[in-house]
Amino acid sequence: MKLLRVNHLGIASPALAEAMDRMDRLFGMAADHVEEVPDQRVRTAFFPVGPSTLEFLESTDPEGPVGKFLEKKGPGIHHIAFEVDDVDAAVQELLAKGVRMIDKAPRAGAHGCRIAFIHPAETGGVLMELCQSPH
Amino acid sequence: MKLLRVNHLGIASPALAEAMDRMDRLFGMAADHVEEVPDQRVRTAFFPVGPSTLEFLESTDPEGPVGKFLEKKGPGIHHIAFEVDDVDAAVQELLAKGVRMIDKAPRAGAHGCRIAFIHPAETGGVLMELCQSPH
Repeated sequence: MKLLRVNHLGIASPALAEAMDRMDRLFGMAADHVEEVPDQRVRTAFFPVGPSTLEFLESTDPEGPVGKFLEKKGPGIHHIAFEVDDVDAAVQELLAKGVRMIDKAPRAGAHGCRIAFIHPAETGGVLMELCQSPH
Repeated sequence: MKLLRVNHLGIASPALAEAMDRMDRLFGMAADHVEEVPDQRVRTAFFPVGPSTLEFLESTDPEGPVGKFLEKKGPGIHHIAFEVDDVDAAVQELLAKGVRMIDKAPRAGAHGCRIAFIHPAETGGVLMELCQSPH
């Protein structure tokens, strides 16, 4: 497997409106898109930066993954997603090496991507996602 | 100012050797370069991913910036660095807006870059660096 680029960074934020205000104040940037993802219990604002995207994540449920992260660690980067050219092959390769996966098979993510999360115990504290963009 | 791309991600790691072993086990990647940066009180291992670099940071001093981060937050992403085409102009633009800066003028960073950190109070919990690569 080859990591082609950082597809996106998921940034846990207590309040999406404040995160968006800061991006405007600092860099004059507006969100490309805002979306609620009920499955992940977040509202998300997307800011493209070159070939990567910053995804600010506001929790809609304190028991959801981002809600728990915010309580434990405070605001900050929740996950890094790497673009790969074949996410099915990448997951198979990791499973064959005995790497623990949150997703043992790729599933649908935002923007038509197919994604799989590696178990954080394997990555030393940074949640990592593999991601294949639609062609 | 325009953010051109994610130049690098600084990832606080309790042990650089373990972080390097994980990158090998997961992705078959070896560090491009390992360097001690006494000024920042870290040892760093660089892994290029497309046009960005993952920089794993091991603290060499519990009182240093990464040592304090590890104690407070545990392993995880310490900072995001964005490439800009003119870091002097970018810093001037932020100062003119009243944005608090850790670096009120750019200084030398790794790989011949010129860098400036924005004060974390302005960025909502994610330390952000502006970075101009050598031409």
